[in-house]
Amino acid sequence: MRDFSQDHRWLSINTATVRRQRGVDWPLLDILDACAARGIRAVSPWRDQVAAAGLAATAQTIAAHGLELSGYCRGGMFTYTDAASRQAVRDDNRRALDEACTLGAPCLVLVVGALPGALAGRAAYKDIAGARAQVAEGIAALLDDARERRMPLAIEPLHPMYAADRACINTLEQALDVCDALDAARSGALGIAVDLYHVWWDPKLAQQIERAGRARLLAFHVCDWLTPTTDLLEDRGMMGDGVIEIAKIRALVEAQGYAGYSEVEIFSAANWWQRDGGEVLDTCIARHRSCV
Amino acid sequence: MRDFSQDHRWLSINTATVRRQRGVDWPLLDILDACAARGIRAVSPWRDQVAAAGLAATAQTIAAHGLELSGYCRGGMFTYTDAASRQAVRDDNRRALDEACTLGAPCLVLVVGALPGALAGRAAYKDIAGARAQVAEGIAALLDDARERRMPLAIEPLHPMYAADRACINTLEQALDVCDALDAARSGALGIAVDLYHVWWDPKLAQQIERAGRARLLAFHVCDWLTPTTDLLEDRGMMGDGVIEIAKIRALVEAQGYAGYSEVEIFSAANWWQRDGGEVLDTCIARHRSCV
Repeated sequence: MRDFSQDHRWLSINTATVRRQRGVDWPLLDILDACAARGIRAVSPWRDQVAAAGLAATAQTIAAHGLELSGYCRGGMFTYTDAASRQAVRDDNRRALDEACTLGAPCLVLVVGALPGALAGRAAYKDIAGARAQVAEGIAALLDDARERRMPLAIEPLHPMYAADRACINTLEQALDVCDALDAARSGALGIAVDLYHVWWDPKLAQQIERAGRARLLAFHVCDWLTPTTDLLEDRGMMGDGVIEIAKIRALVEAQGYAGYSEVEIFSAANWWQRDGGEVLDTCIARHRSCV
Repeated sequence: MRDFSQDHRWLSINTATVRRQRGVDWPLLDILDACAARGIRAVSPWRDQVAAAGLAATAQTIAAHGLELSGYCRGGMFTYTDAASRQAVRDDNRRALDEACTLGAPCLVLVVGALPGALAGRAAYKDIAGARAQVAEGIAALLDDARERRMPLAIEPLHPMYAADRACINTLEQALDVCDALDAARSGALGIAVDLYHVWWDPKLAQQIERAGRARLLAFHVCDWLTPTTDLLEDRGMMGDGVIEIAKIRALVEAQGYAGYSEVEIFSAANWWQRDGGEVLDTCIARHRSCV
């Protein structure tokens, strides 16, 4: 297991972690500057932040700072209610792939979607098995586009509390079943993003990380689970402030040969997004060294 | 599959569903009266409500109304930090068993506990595998007490969002693994409570209900999952107001031979607990017929 205590060379910042400072949006290019100024070597930007900053300007700033990406957030949202929405999803995901290529991402992270309409408060249907079938079909189609572009797809299982509205792939086992079905050869074109917030509770965590193996482990995200958690979406904790055994799980992932970045992804409306962005980045660096 | 549309003979009310009316505690004996007045045949009371009303008075009222129990809520909370707390847990669970016997419950429902102290905001340790081992040990010990009293134990897997602070058994598969380890003979002394709020999202739901079979299916709880869900604990929905395919899952359970009550358990601080208790019971009856 790598020693993270001496430096932060394997730290990546998911830019959602500092998407707001003091409650106000922090522009992506400023975030990239602030990361580079601290010797942070990698980031994982969100599409909406890239769109706001401009794709070309983002790519330019990343190149100018010599930053790497640990992933691109995100494609997915595959479920649909009719042929038109299915086509729109595929088109949008192709654009996401192209952006990931432009930015030099190692993978496109997939939040696969759930019951259509649920995120807006009104599910178009309740058939979660049907939604899961649509997701598998959507990943299969996108995988063709991804192979053409040599851009790996990383399925991110989301915590079961998001099964209705954000992602109906909710365990590593389920994600790996999809990987096995669509890429039995373990070609590297399809794998998983292991985000500890979503999977830390899983009694089959160690078993499924071993099943994934090096070929399927495309990304590793950290934050912490707070007790109490006061909001289902935007109350993630800084590493060390919660109950996740982060180092123990990182050891499992590295035992399979994972040697990439540890990406900090924290949504925290009431705490970290209310602070100065530089303070948040400094805290990420300190906790990466002491708690990851 | 039984037809629930014509009457509510298989409806049970978990008394937490009406623990408050208009924001104020509704005394258990009044709840029992209100249930009986509506022809509701079964209830599942919570220990704290029974303690407030008195065990003997509760048993008397239940007998006077000819009510049955569909379960007794709850035993468990097995995790500990030292020998004294371990012993205290076992003693308390024995008392819960005795109360369940006095009330004529068909089973004692177990919410198994998680990281000690987390519910109060400060986990004594983070070792969830260790907590799970303590839980298995606690169930094994309690099973001896339960067999003596001929009182079945029903492990209730809780939603993974409660893994840190309420229950570290989070899937049916995990609960059934414990059942298989401690009661391989499927004697009926140990089984599961299937609460749809906790398990509806599980991609292995159908498979594990089939694995459970008649011998292990001791209780069936319903409510609904709202989108959005605004609180991790107290924002459960009334059947029909959310996205759970209740009838489809009831069909799976009944296909295994389950023929007991469908117990409504709703924690709803901002909605149902703010209403008149009689209105809530009437709604439970209507939704039991139309949505369960």
